[in-house]
Amino acid sequence: MTLWGGRFDAKLDPAAWALNASLPFDRRLAAQDVGGSQAWAAALRDAGLLSAAEYQQIASGLEAIAAEFDGGTFVFAEGDEDIHTAVERRLGERTGALAGKLHTGRSRNDQVATDFRMWVLEALPALDEALCGLQSTLLDLAEAHTATLMPGYTHLQRAQPVTLAHWLLSHFWPLQRDRERLADLRQRTAVLPLGCGALAGTAFPIDRTALAEALGFDEPAPNSIDAVSDRDFAAEFLFCSALCGIHLSRLSESMVLFTTAEFGFFELSDAYATGSSLMPQKKNPDLFELARGKSGSLTGLLTGLLVTLKGLPSSYDKDLQEDKLPVFTAADTLRTILPVLAGALRTMTVHPERMRTAIDPTLMATDLAEHLVRKGVPFREAHGLTGQAVRAAAEKGCGLDQLCQADWQALGLLEADLLPVFDPLASVEKKSAIGGTAPQAVLEQIQNAKIKLRKGKGE
Amino acid sequence: MTLWGGRFDAKLDPAAWALNASLPFDRRLAAQDVGGSQAWAAALRDAGLLSAAEYQQIASGLEAIAAEFDGGTFVFAEGDEDIHTAVERRLGERTGALAGKLHTGRSRNDQVATDFRMWVLEALPALDEALCGLQSTLLDLAEAHTATLMPGYTHLQRAQPVTLAHWLLSHFWPLQRDRERLADLRQRTAVLPLGCGALAGTAFPIDRTALAEALGFDEPAPNSIDAVSDRDFAAEFLFCSALCGIHLSRLSESMVLFTTAEFGFFELSDAYATGSSLMPQKKNPDLFELARGKSGSLTGLLTGLLVTLKGLPSSYDKDLQEDKLPVFTAADTLRTILPVLAGALRTMTVHPERMRTAIDPTLMATDLAEHLVRKGVPFREAHGLTGQAVRAAAEKGCGLDQLCQADWQALGLLEADLLPVFDPLASVEKKSAIGGTAPQAVLEQIQNAKIKLRKGKGE
Amino acid sequence: MTLWGGRFDAKLDPAAWALNASLPFDRRLAAQDVGGSQAWAAALRDAGLLSAAEYQQIASGLEAIAAEFDGGTFVFAEGDEDIHTAVERRLGERTGALAGKLHTGRSRNDQVATDFRMWVLEALPALDEALCGLQSTLLDLAEAHTATLMPGYTHLQRAQPVTLAHWLLSHFWPLQRDRERLADLRQRTAVLPLGCGALAGTAFPIDRTALAEALGFDEPAPNSIDAVSDRDFAAEFLFCSALCGIHLSRLSESMVLFTTAEFGFFELSDAYATGSSLMPQKKNPDLFELARGKSGSLTGLLTGLLVTLKGLPSSYDKDLQEDKLPVFTAADTLRTILPVLAGALRTMTVHPERMRTAIDPTLMATDLAEHLVRKGVPFREAHGLTGQAVRAAAEKGCGLDQLCQADWQALGLLEADLLPVFDPLASVEKKSAIGGTAPQAVLEQIQNAKIKLRKGKGE
Amino acid sequence: MTLWGGRFDAKLDPAAWALNASLPFDRRLAAQDVGGSQAWAAALRDAGLLSAAEYQQIASGLEAIAAEFDGGTFVFAEGDEDIHTAVERRLGERTGALAGKLHTGRSRNDQVATDFRMWVLEALPALDEALCGLQSTLLDLAEAHTATLMPGYTHLQRAQPVTLAHWLLSHFWPLQRDRERLADLRQRTAVLPLGCGALAGTAFPIDRTALAEALGFDEPAPNSIDAVSDRDFAAEFLFCSALCGIHLSRLSESMVLFTTAEFGFFELSDAYATGSSLMPQKKNPDLFELARGKSGSLTGLLTGLLVTLKGLPSSYDKDLQEDKLPVFTAADTLRTILPVLAGALRTMTVHPERMRTAIDPTLMATDLAEHLVRKGVPFREAHGLTGQAVRAAAEKGCGLDQLCQADWQALGLLEADLLPVFDPLASVEKKSAIGGTAPQAVLEQIQNAKIKLRKGKGE
Repeated sequence: MTLWGGRFDAKLDPAAWALNASLPFDRRLAAQDVGGSQAWAAALRDAGLLSAAEYQQIASGLEAIAAEFDGGTFVFAEGDEDIHTAVERRLGERTGALAGKLHTGRSRNDQVATDFRMWVLEALPALDEALCGLQSTLLDLAEAHTATLMPGYTHLQRAQPVTLAHWLLSHFWPLQRDRERLADLRQRTAVLPLGCGALAGTAFPIDRTALAEALGFDEPAPNSIDAVSDRDFAAEFLFCSALCGIHLSRLSESMVLFTTAEFGFFELSDAYATGSSLMPQKKNPDLFELARGKSGSLTGLLTGLLVTLKGLPSSYDKDLQEDKLPVFTAADTLRTILPVLAGALRTMTVHPERMRTAIDPTLMATDLAEHLVRKGVPFREAHGLTGQAVRAAAEKGCGLDQLCQADWQALGLLEADLLPVFDPLASVEKKSAIGGTAPQAVLEQIQNAKIKLRKGKGE
Repeated sequence: MTLWGGRFDAKLDPAAWALNASLPFDRRLAAQDVGGSQAWAAALRDAGLLSAAEYQQIASGLEAIAAEFDGGTFVFAEGDEDIHTAVERRLGERTGALAGKLHTGRSRNDQVATDFRMWVLEALPALDEALCGLQSTLLDLAEAHTATLMPGYTHLQRAQPVTLAHWLLSHFWPLQRDRERLADLRQRTAVLPLGCGALAGTAFPIDRTALAEALGFDEPAPNSIDAVSDRDFAAEFLFCSALCGIHLSRLSESMVLFTTAEFGFFELSDAYATGSSLMPQKKNPDLFELARGKSGSLTGLLTGLLVTLKGLPSSYDKDLQEDKLPVFTAADTLRTILPVLAGALRTMTVHPERMRTAIDPTLMATDLAEHLVRKGVPFREAHGLTGQAVRAAAEKGCGLDQLCQADWQALGLLEADLLPVFDPLASVEKKSAIGGTAPQAVLEQIQNAKIKLRKGKGE
Repeated sequence: MTLWGGRFDAKLDPAAWALNASLPFDRRLAAQDVGGSQAWAAALRDAGLLSAAEYQQIASGLEAIAAEFDGGTFVFAEGDEDIHTAVERRLGERTGALAGKLHTGRSRNDQVATDFRMWVLEALPALDEALCGLQSTLLDLAEAHTATLMPGYTHLQRAQPVTLAHWLLSHFWPLQRDRERLADLRQRTAVLPLGCGALAGTAFPIDRTALAEALGFDEPAPNSIDAVSDRDFAAEFLFCSALCGIHLSRLSESMVLFTTAEFGFFELSDAYATGSSLMPQKKNPDLFELARGKSGSLTGLLTGLLVTLKGLPSSYDKDLQEDKLPVFTAADTLRTILPVLAGALRTMTVHPERMRTAIDPTLMATDLAEHLVRKGVPFREAHGLTGQAVRAAAEKGCGLDQLCQADWQALGLLEADLLPVFDPLASVEKKSAIGGTAPQAVLEQIQNAKIKLRKGKGE
Repeated sequence: MTLWGGRFDAKLDPAAWALNASLPFDRRLAAQDVGGSQAWAAALRDAGLLSAAEYQQIASGLEAIAAEFDGGTFVFAEGDEDIHTAVERRLGERTGALAGKLHTGRSRNDQVATDFRMWVLEALPALDEALCGLQSTLLDLAEAHTATLMPGYTHLQRAQPVTLAHWLLSHFWPLQRDRERLADLRQRTAVLPLGCGALAGTAFPIDRTALAEALGFDEPAPNSIDAVSDRDFAAEFLFCSALCGIHLSRLSESMVLFTTAEFGFFELSDAYATGSSLMPQKKNPDLFELARGKSGSLTGLLTGLLVTLKGLPSSYDKDLQEDKLPVFTAADTLRTILPVLAGALRTMTVHPERMRTAIDPTLMATDLAEHLVRKGVPFREAHGLTGQAVRAAAEKGCGLDQLCQADWQALGLLEADLLPVFDPLASVEKKSAIGGTAPQAVLEQIQNAKIKLRKGKGE
C-alpha cells in the first residue's frame, strides 16, 4: 500500500520500489510513529476534526498496534512503503475507513521529522548513561591511583612524571564535553515539526503548542518550510558521535600502547582480549583497536550526511530519507563500544612498577631547570644549562642524576647536592595549581569530576 | 632562534625546518600571544617569580611589541620558529636576559592552546555579527513580502502556495541555530589552558583562576594533560562553520534556481552578478555558486581536523599544529561570504507576477481534498478523489479549476461551486497555526525572529 | 568456537564478543572463504603437508560446505567468531581432526585479505555491467535526439543552444571514466595475500605463484607485512564509488530540474515517479533525489575508511575489520541505483517543444559576436558591441532578434539582415570541431562512445 | 579589467569582487595560461582567424609576458579578475586591439580547465620523483639490513621475528601503488578541453587533435559539455594524495613508536628532531608527527572537492573555481613532506641490539607449533598445545624456552631438545616463499623493487 497514487496510471517499477522503500530502516521508528499518531489524533479531536468516539476508536487501534510492535507480532505487508504507511494500513484493517481520517492536515514530511526527533530525544539519555559508565570507571580507577607515578608523554617521548590518576582523568573530561554537547543538542532537537504539513503549515486549527507539550517537545517549530527540511539535529548528533569516537580512538591508542610488551603498564583481562589463529602466544587488544577503527565510520557518517544535505534546493526533498540510517548506526556504535571499554578498563591489571621504572632521571630535567630558576637564574638560561647537562650525561652514558660534581661545576653549577631534584614524587607534588598532577590537586579534580558526573549539564 | 637546542648537536635540516615552521600561519596569533604573555608576566609577579620592576620592564617591552604588530613594523627574523619564539626573541632584544624569565613555568603547549582559544573567542562575535547581518536582510525582505504569494516546492515540484516572507524566513532560522551553536561553543572555548605547562601542570604557585579572569576566560582547564591536547573547540568551530556553509549552500541553490530564466522569481543587481568572457548576454549568479561551492571546503576542513585528531596517542603531539589553519580559513570564508549574500539579497529585484503566475491551480489540489474533509469525507478518500480529478484534468488538458460540473459529478462531487477552493490567498490564509504560512502567522513569526535577532542566545 | 584460546583462562565478555564478532557482515565472504580454502588445501598437498587422501577428504568437505551455503542450509553456531571460524568448525564436524590441518601455515590475516580481494574482483564486472547499462540507455536516447535542440546552460543560465544528444552524452563520459578507474583498480586488487601468514610469510614451501593463478589473481603480494595490512584496493574502490556517486548526483540534479514545471523538458513515467501522502497532484522525482542523496553516504564511506586506516602502526591491526562493510555497502548502493536510473531515463517522455521554446534569441548573442568576428572585428570588441545590443533589447523589452535597423546602426552595425544569426540550428551546426554539439560531430561522438562501451578498457 | 561587462550597468560590489576573484590562487597557472594561449593563437592562425603577422605579434607578446612572469616583473592590475584576464589585459597593453582577437572561439571555461590540467600534468612527474626519493631511501636501508632481526608486530603485540629490511620494504610497496595510481591518473588528465568553448564547442574550424598534440595532451575531450565541467582528474589527484598521506601517516606512526624510549629501535639525527621550550631533555619526532597530522588535511581536501562537485546541475558552474586551491595545497604538502621523511630515515641511527633483545622466546611460539606440525600433529592441535606451554611458562614466570623436560612432557611433548626452535634467525629463514621475510626472499624482493623503482609504471 502507498499513501498516494490517485493520479498515477502505473505502479512503481520493482527495482525503483526497492530503492525507494525506507521500511528496512525506518521500522525502527515504529513506536515513535504510533506515539506521534496518537498525539495527532488527540489534536484532531481537539480541533473538531474527529469526534470523541472516532478518536477513541483510533486511539484504541493505535494502542493495539503499539502492542503488536512491542510483542513482535506486527506483520509488515509486502507493499508497505514505509513505517507511516504500514501503521496507517494496519489501522485501516482494524478501524476501517475511519483510519483515513488520521492523516488529515499532516504530511509524511512533518510526520517523519517528528518521529525521527522523538527517536533522537530518546536515544540521548541512553547515550549519556553509557558515557557516564565509562566516566565512572575512569573515576574509580583514578581514586585508586592518586599516588601511582608514571611517565607523562609529549610527542610520545617521556616528558615529566605524572600520576596515573591524572592520566586517567585526562580521558574523563573529553567525555564530559561530549555529554555537554549532547545536552546542548537536546534543546535544538526538542522543536516539534508536527503541524507543519508538507511545507506550508496545516490548514486546520491545531494547537501546536499543546501538541509539542503532549509529545515532550519544548516548542513548536517556528517555520513550516524549515521544519520539514531541518536536519541540523541529525548532523549535530553525528558530529557529537564522531568527536566522541575520536576521543575513544585516543584513549584506545594509549591503551594499545600501554599494553604492549615495550610499555607494559597495563595487562588486559582474558575476558577483554583475544588471541591469534596462528600465533599461540598472542594476547591482542582487539577491542580497543575496534573502538579506534570505528572512529572512522563515525566520521564517515557525519561527512555523509553533510554531503547529502549540501545544496538541497527546497523544503522537503527525498534526499532527506538518507538521514536516519547514519544516526541509528552512530548511536548503536557508541552504545556498543562504551560499555566494552569500561569493562576492559575495570578488569585490567595495572603494573605500577613498570611505570615507575620508566621514569628515568631525565624526566626531571625540567625540575632541575626550575630549581635553578628558584635560585634566580632566568628560565631560558636554566633551560640551556640543563640541556648541556643532559648532553653531558648522554656522552658519559650515565643517568642525568649520576653526573659528578665536576660535571656540574663544568656547567657552572656549584651546588653540593642536586639529587633531591630527581625525586619524581617531589616533581609531581610541585604541580599543585588547579589542574596540575600533584596528588592534592588531583583529589580536588576528582571531587569536581564527581559533581559533574552526578549532575550532568542537563540537571 | 629556537626556544630549545641545548642538547642538540646539529641544526635542523632546512627542508625539515620549512615543514616544521608554523610562523606562516601562527603569526595571526601575534596579538593573542602578546596579550597572553602580559597576563602570564603578571601571574609570575603575583607568584613572586618576577619583581615588580622586572614585571614592569617585561610589560613595557610586550606593549611595545604589540604596538609594532599593530603598526606593521614588527620584523620577523629568519630563524623565528613560531610566533611564540618571535615574541620572546624580540622581547630579548628589548629587555635583555630578563626576557628569559618570561617562559618560567609555562610551555609552548599551554601557550599556543591559550593563544588559539583567545583567537576563537574573538572570532565568535565577529561571526555572530556577520550572521545577524544576513538574518536582518532576510527579515527586512520578509517584512516587505508578507502578502507576496509564490509557489512552495517539495521535491522541487510545485506543491502549495506560500508567501515569499515565509520562504525568506525559512532561511532565517537555520542561521539562528548556527548562532546558538556558536554561543554554546563559546562556553567550551573559554576554558584556560595556561598554567598547564607542557602536560603536568606548572611547578610554580600560579593563581590560574585569576589568570583565567584576566584573560577573559570563564575558568581554568581542570586537567593539564587534557588541556594541552584538547582541540574539541576547534573541531566544534569547524562543525558549526561547515553546517552554516551547508545552510548557505541551500539558500544559494534556491537563489541560483530562482534567478534562472525558467523560474524568473528574482533578478540580481548588476553589482552582484557577473558576465561571461564569451557569451555577451550572460548574467550569472556566481556569488551564490561560490557560496555553494565553498560549503565543500568548509566540510573538508572539518573532516581534515577530525582525521588529524584521530588516534593521537598522548597529551601533546606535534600533529596538533595542523589545527589552526583550518579554523582561520573557515572563519575567513564565512566572514567573506555572509555580507556578500546579504548584499545580493538586499539589492535584487523581486518579480511577484512571475511567482503568482507559477501558482497553477493544481497547487490547490490539497485545498480541494481538505474542502472535502470539512464536509466529512475521510482525508484518505478525499485524497484519492482529488488525485482522480488531477488526472481527469490532465487528460482533458485543462486546469484543475476548469473541470466542468459533469467532471466533478463523475467523481461523485456534486458541489455547485468549487472555484473558491482555487484561490491561493485563501489557501495560504488557512495555514494559520504557529509556524504556518498565513500572513498573520508570518507576522507573529517575524516578531519572534526580531526578538531572537536582537537578543541572540548569548545575551 | 574460536581459533585461539589455548593460553586464555576466561571467555570473552559477552558485550566484548558482540563488538568483536564480524560474522554479521563477513558471512558475505562465505563463497570466497571456501574457495580460498580449497586452493590452500591443494597448495598444502603440493607442499607435502597433506597426503592426497587427506586433501581429497578436505576438498570434499569444503565442497559440501559450499553446497550448504549455496542452498541456504548452512547453520552458523552461536560461537562462530567469523566466517573463517565457521567454515573450519563445520569442516571439523565433517572431517574430524583432519580439519585442524587446513590452517597450517596460514593466518586469518592473509586469509581474510584474500577473501575480501576475491569478493571485490567478483564485484567489479557486475558493477561494470551496471554502468554499461546506464551508458547504453544514454546512448540509445542520444541516437534518437541528435537533432533535438535544447538550451545549454552554464551557471544554470541559458547559454547557447545544444542538441539533446550532446547533453545526454555529457553524462556518458563520466561513467566511462568510472569504468576505466575500476579497470585500473582491478590490477591492484588482483595481488594475492595468501601465503603471507600473520605477517612474516609462511614457514612452508608453498608455491605462491601457482596459488595466485589457481585463485584468479595476477601475482602474489611481494611483501608479507604489507600484504596483510594493505587496504588500498578497498579505499580505491570506495573512491571510485564515491566519484561515480557524484556523477550520478549531477545527472540526478539535472533530471530533477528538467522535470520541474518550470523547465518541463522531460516527464517521468509513472513507473518511476512517486506521489505525496498529502498533495494529490504531486508527481515527484524521488528516485533521482535518492540517487543524489546517496552520493552522501558513498562519500562518507570513503572518508570513513581513510580515517580508519590513518595512523595504523603495524602490519595487521584489528581496526582493519572495519574495511568490509563500507565496500559491501558501496557496491550494493551502486548496483541498486544504476538500473533504476537507466529505467527512469528509458521510460521518460521528452518534450522537444518545451526545449525549443526555451531557446530565446539571446542564446545566439555569441553567434552574433562571432558573426562580427568573421567580418574582421576583434572578438573582444564584438563581445562588447553585442553586450550593448543585449542591453538595448532589454531596455526596449524586446527580443534580441527584434531590434530594428536603427538600433543596430546605433551600435555601429550597419548590416542589412542579421536574422540568420538567430537560428539555433545554424548555431549548433557551427560547433563541428571534435567534441562539439553539431549533429555531425555528435554522430562521430556516438560512434566513439559505442566502441568504448563495447570494449571497455579491460578488453 | 574584466572580460565581460557590455550588458552591465554597475560594477561589482567590492566585497563581491573579493569573493569572486580567483587571482590570489590562479596566478599559479600563469605559465600554463600563457602556454595555452600561444597554442590557441597558432590554432586560430591555422584556422584562418589570425594572419601570420597577427599571430607573430600575439606570439611575441605572449612570449614577453611569459618572460615577465619568469622574471618576477609581471605587475597585476587592481582590476585583474583572474589570471586569464591579467594575461589578456597585458597582451592588450603590448599589442593593442589585436589582443582582442585571442579569445576568439574560446571561453574561460575551456581555458581554465586546460590550464589546470596542464598544471597537474607538470606536477605529476615532480611528485613521482619525490615518491621515488623516499622509496630509494627505504631500499638503500633495506639493502643494509637484510640480516638485521627485529620483532614483527600485529595488533602492536610482538608476533614473529622479521628482518628490518622486510619491514622497511613493507613501506616501499604502498608508495609504489601510489605511483601507479598517479600514472593511471595521467591518462585521464591528458584529455584536452581547449576548443570546447563555454560548453557547446567552438564555432571555428579548430583542429583540436593538433592542438592536443601541441600542448602535450593525448587527445581532445570527446564532449564539450563534459569537458568544461569534468573535474574527475582533480578529485582523483586528491584521492591519490590522500591515500599517499595515509601511507605516510602509517610509516610516521611506526617511526614515532620506534624512536620512543620504550621501543628504542631507531634514534633520529639531530638534524631531523626538535626540542622542547620547557623540557631540556626532549628530542621529539616532530617531523613524523607533522607528516601524520597532514594526512588529515589531505583527506579533508579530497572530501572538500567531492562536496563541491556534488549535485552541480550543469556544464560549468562557478562552484568549480573551488577546484584549484585543494590540488595546489595537496601537491605542495606531499612535495614538502616526502624529502623530509627521506632525510630523516637516511640519517637515523639503527639500534640492532634493541631490536634483537625485543625478540623474546614467545615470538617463536608459532615455530614451536609448526615444529609439531612437521611431526604430523594437526596444526589446530599443535596451536592448542603451544598455547598451554605459553601459559605454563607465564605461570612459572620463565621464558617459553626455559620450560623443563617435565613441563614439556606434561603437555605430551616428549622431545629431547626443543631449543633450536627458539632461534629467531631459523624462524626467519623458514619464511622463504615469495614475499616472506627470509633473507633470501628479501634479496629477491629488493631486486624486484629496484626494477619497479627504475621503471615506474609509466616507462
